[in-house]
Amino acid sequence: MRLPQDGTDPKLFAGRRERLAEILGRRKCDAYFFSGISDLYYLTGFHSEGFTGLVSAKATWLFSSALLAGQVRECAPGCRRIVGKRLSAAVEELIQKHRFKRVGFDAEQLNFRLGDVLSKKGLRPRPNPLEELRIVKEEGEVLRLRRAGKITAEAVAHVRARVRAGMTEKQMAVAIESYFYRRGATGIGFDLIAAVGPNTALPHHIPGETRLAKNSAVLFDVGCRVGAYRSDLTRSFYYGKITPNYRRVYGIVDAAQRAGIEAIRPGATGGQVDAASRGVVARAGFGRAFIHSTGHGVGIDIHEPPWVRPNSPDVLKPNMILTVEPGIYLSGRFGVRIEDTFRVTAEGRETLTKI
Amino acid sequence: MRLPQDGTDPKLFAGRRERLAEILGRRKCDAYFFSGISDLYYLTGFHSEGFTGLVSAKATWLFSSALLAGQVRECAPGCRRIVGKRLSAAVEELIQKHRFKRVGFDAEQLNFRLGDVLSKKGLRPRPNPLEELRIVKEEGEVLRLRRAGKITAEAVAHVRARVRAGMTEKQMAVAIESYFYRRGATGIGFDLIAAVGPNTALPHHIPGETRLAKNSAVLFDVGCRVGAYRSDLTRSFYYGKITPNYRRVYGIVDAAQRAGIEAIRPGATGGQVDAASRGVVARAGFGRAFIHSTGHGVGIDIHEPPWVRPNSPDVLKPNMILTVEPGIYLSGRFGVRIEDTFRVTAEGRETLTKI
Repeated sequence: MRLPQDGTDPKLFAGRRERLAEILGRRKCDAYFFSGISDLYYLTGFHSEGFTGLVSAKATWLFSSALLAGQVRECAPGCRRIVGKRLSAAVEELIQKHRFKRVGFDAEQLNFRLGDVLSKKGLRPRPNPLEELRIVKEEGEVLRLRRAGKITAEAVAHVRARVRAGMTEKQMAVAIESYFYRRGATGIGFDLIAAVGPNTALPHHIPGETRLAKNSAVLFDVGCRVGAYRSDLTRSFYYGKITPNYRRVYGIVDAAQRAGIEAIRPGATGGQVDAASRGVVARAGFGRAFIHSTGHGVGIDIHEPPWVRPNSPDVLKPNMILTVEPGIYLSGRFGVRIEDTFRVTAEGRETLTKI
Repeated sequence: MRLPQDGTDPKLFAGRRERLAEILGRRKCDAYFFSGISDLYYLTGFHSEGFTGLVSAKATWLFSSALLAGQVRECAPGCRRIVGKRLSAAVEELIQKHRFKRVGFDAEQLNFRLGDVLSKKGLRPRPNPLEELRIVKEEGEVLRLRRAGKITAEAVAHVRARVRAGMTEKQMAVAIESYFYRRGATGIGFDLIAAVGPNTALPHHIPGETRLAKNSAVLFDVGCRVGAYRSDLTRSFYYGKITPNYRRVYGIVDAAQRAGIEAIRPGATGGQVDAASRGVVARAGFGRAFIHSTGHGVGIDIHEPPWVRPNSPDVLKPNMILTVEPGIYLSGRFGVRIEDTFRVTAEGRETLTKI
């Protein structure tokens, strides 16, 4: 299946800016200042570092250095370009000219220097209005997410069948990445994890020169990108003769994942999905070895809303995307994590990370 | 040549922390708060998102969630770990206990939320003391930078010899990336650029589905990573029958690059290197088509000091690394940029991006 390139349909991005303007109106906000590359991509179709934007019901302005002027023109139709001006002065001028009173920014997105300067011009930290839009995926986004999930599942199956004692973690990670490209992925979704032996007990292990032993735990946590959209998949398995302890822990994590998956449906909260998975691990006596959230949303960012963690109030709706990835980590011995990416459907969920 | 893995020598990182403490003393700063991944890697050997650090002459504390606890223990020997505490409370406690009066942070590195919270605890934006250390490379860093440069030059020569009409920009970029991995690179140094035809006039073009025509300008701006260290190389060439205009513009950019390279020596400033290159382009009448800096430093970050731009006061010293990359961009027609990465030597410069 050939997907259209990201950013080829100006109407798509103009429509998103219109819906954002409605949200701003509802929140009594005249304009919002963005500096995050994912937010700006979502609004303009232009995926590049080095520019910022001010969005309002009247217009969207993009600020960039002269270096990026040509690209903003080509890649962000319908946006007004402000090139090579000092940012704070340019923003102030627009605010005064258009009499914007309430202008927000995301305090996690802006650096302190810029946030401090813009605060002095009257801008204020406010909840990011794009979260409300980005959390529910459009049809084109779902196509890309599904494709990314499928390629990732295939890559892991392909490489898993070919691991041999003596291979390094890095060789495994590179094999998975190479498979992504052969299948037409745009890139990796995040720094790929391949871990063997006790390294599997480190949830964010960086693949190194450790070689696979004849009998060893293995963990892959990998994902690719299709266009701007990512996938996230973890598989844990035992290479060689499995130990009873590994088998037991694996069974608990597997049951925990199934419980979490069953909890995915419209109206459930991220907190409920987390509780369903976490409960299984806790009842088996491994609660303290499950040291992270049960999952997270996935889209243009690898971690985004809805949040799937204790007490998360995020209510699931159709076409939200989330992972379920319980894990048990036994320091110095091994770790097991099982993760898939799901789309919330009208009745329940669709697994995206499947072949 | 086999290079030692990053992060295997605890003494290396402890030595850097000692030298940083000296700089802090000289600047009358009791401690400095870091959140940037590159700075924290430089100080600890631990290259991961999700942790922050406070460095002082007394000790270095690393703050992380429980998720990363195991990794901080394994990968950052000699640092004290503070796991799973609220960051602002943990920092405040340390400041009071050790009676730190002047504690700085980098206003570009921290996000507004964190900078705002820490400001209320008495921390203040101050120039980043690590810039003074990181700008001059140690022997082990030079080895990695040299290797990254060599692999990059080889990759471009390899793929350049194989481009054919009909290939897409993305196929060229993937071919270069695949070559990096075959030669043992750790990863890409930045989002690779491959551009054909009028796309070469966009300095930061994103490789797409545009196919190489029988006669066309081509531009590669690529680099890999060896360990944490990057390379940066740009080549421009004409595929097919070169036009007189392309030949002329190429000649000007080539002369501009040579003038910039000749200006690299200890004691020269980044501004002087910029002026040498820029002068050639301006005298040829293309000053307004050279819309970016002449270059930048390269290391753990792809863009770092010394800055090679108009009036940059950064004084070059042996073992600083910088690029020289003049360019001329003719919108809708073609662009030419030529870039190499250099090490400043006692007498002049060493080209790192060569086979």
